[in-house]
Amino acid sequence: MSRKQMTRPGGRSARVQAAVHSAVRELLAEVGRDALTVPMVAQRADVTPSTIYRRWGDLTELLSDVAVERLRPDGEPEDHGDLRSDLTAWAEQFLDEMASGSGRAYTRDALLGDPDGSNAGQCSAYAAEQINTILARAVRRGENPPDVETAMDRIVAPMMYRILFRPDGLDTAYARRLVTDLLNTSTTSAS
Amino acid sequence: MSRKQMTRPGGRSARVQAAVHSAVRELLAEVGRDALTVPMVAQRADVTPSTIYRRWGDLTELLSDVAVERLRPDGEPEDHGDLRSDLTAWAEQFLDEMASGSGRAYTRDALLGDPDGSNAGQCSAYAAEQINTILARAVRRGENPPDVETAMDRIVAPMMYRILFRPDGLDTAYARRLVTDLLNTSTTSAS
Repeated sequence: MSRKQMTRPGGRSARVQAAVHSAVRELLAEVGRDALTVPMVAQRADVTPSTIYRRWGDLTELLSDVAVERLRPDGEPEDHGDLRSDLTAWAEQFLDEMASGSGRAYTRDALLGDPDGSNAGQCSAYAAEQINTILARAVRRGENPPDVETAMDRIVAPMMYRILFRPDGLDTAYARRLVTDLLNTSTTSAS
Repeated sequence: MSRKQMTRPGGRSARVQAAVHSAVRELLAEVGRDALTVPMVAQRADVTPSTIYRRWGDLTELLSDVAVERLRPDGEPEDHGDLRSDLTAWAEQFLDEMASGSGRAYTRDALLGDPDGSNAGQCSAYAAEQINTILARAVRRGENPPDVETAMDRIVAPMMYRILFRPDGLDTAYARRLVTDLLNTSTTSAS
């Protein structure tokens, strides 16, 4: 899940990508998503519009790449000493971030300009990496955690599904209940 | 969950909506999504482009409305005599339809041109209605089903999350396992 999936093949320069990404982030803050145009981004990043069209196809694909970059976790999940505490803290923070206005906007952007599904897959890979770290810690402590795909189905999927399709009643208590239900039943669910 | 949420307020004529929707469906089949334009749809539906812009805002919102209409279930889920059989058959068919090329395209369209989230909410409401019917039947049989929100979290959410973000390994066995895990653990999960 390194940056490999973040940059497309073809020897594109990381410098141009960084300049274009930060131009998009600045302009999103300054003029907003609706007013954003490729020429505007090109001017701010000091590249030609054709460079952007060649590399990203169109604005929605560029916004999708920027969104995935923004959704990348800052670091490892905190270690609170046991599986239940680690998963609960992570789920609460994940829901808080993804259900926020910017979290929803980035998730939407990531999905929209993503013809081959690689950006959506990267978002999912980020969550799976974080959960894997938590589960591996639990194993080292001698705990008996569920497998990562079960944790994705029971914690990440319900939160993301509700953020996109069924947003009522999404709160910290919901995130906690998902973790509790998983840990109370994971021996069955992990089958 | 009637058509109420399907049509927007403002006294729009159902006749025009039907003509525009079927024009979109025909043209999607004939020219494909990328070639589709509002004037093309207007001509086929025998309305003015401004009628479409006034009513739907833009093409993505129109495609979103058409998609939700296409995702509406044809009827009640089949009665196979018990909760496990009903949920399993429904989940297998739901995954089959939603993971198909057209299912993915409609889901995508429904999410994209949906500024207020009402179309995504309608898609979720369709699934909840179907599951509600199955659960109510189980109650009448004297079975002890989970609540509908737990069933949404445990069956619909994982399938839709994986269709959008993590599409590998989506098959009938996966849909069956979600139902089995839910019914084996739902007393806890329904807490």
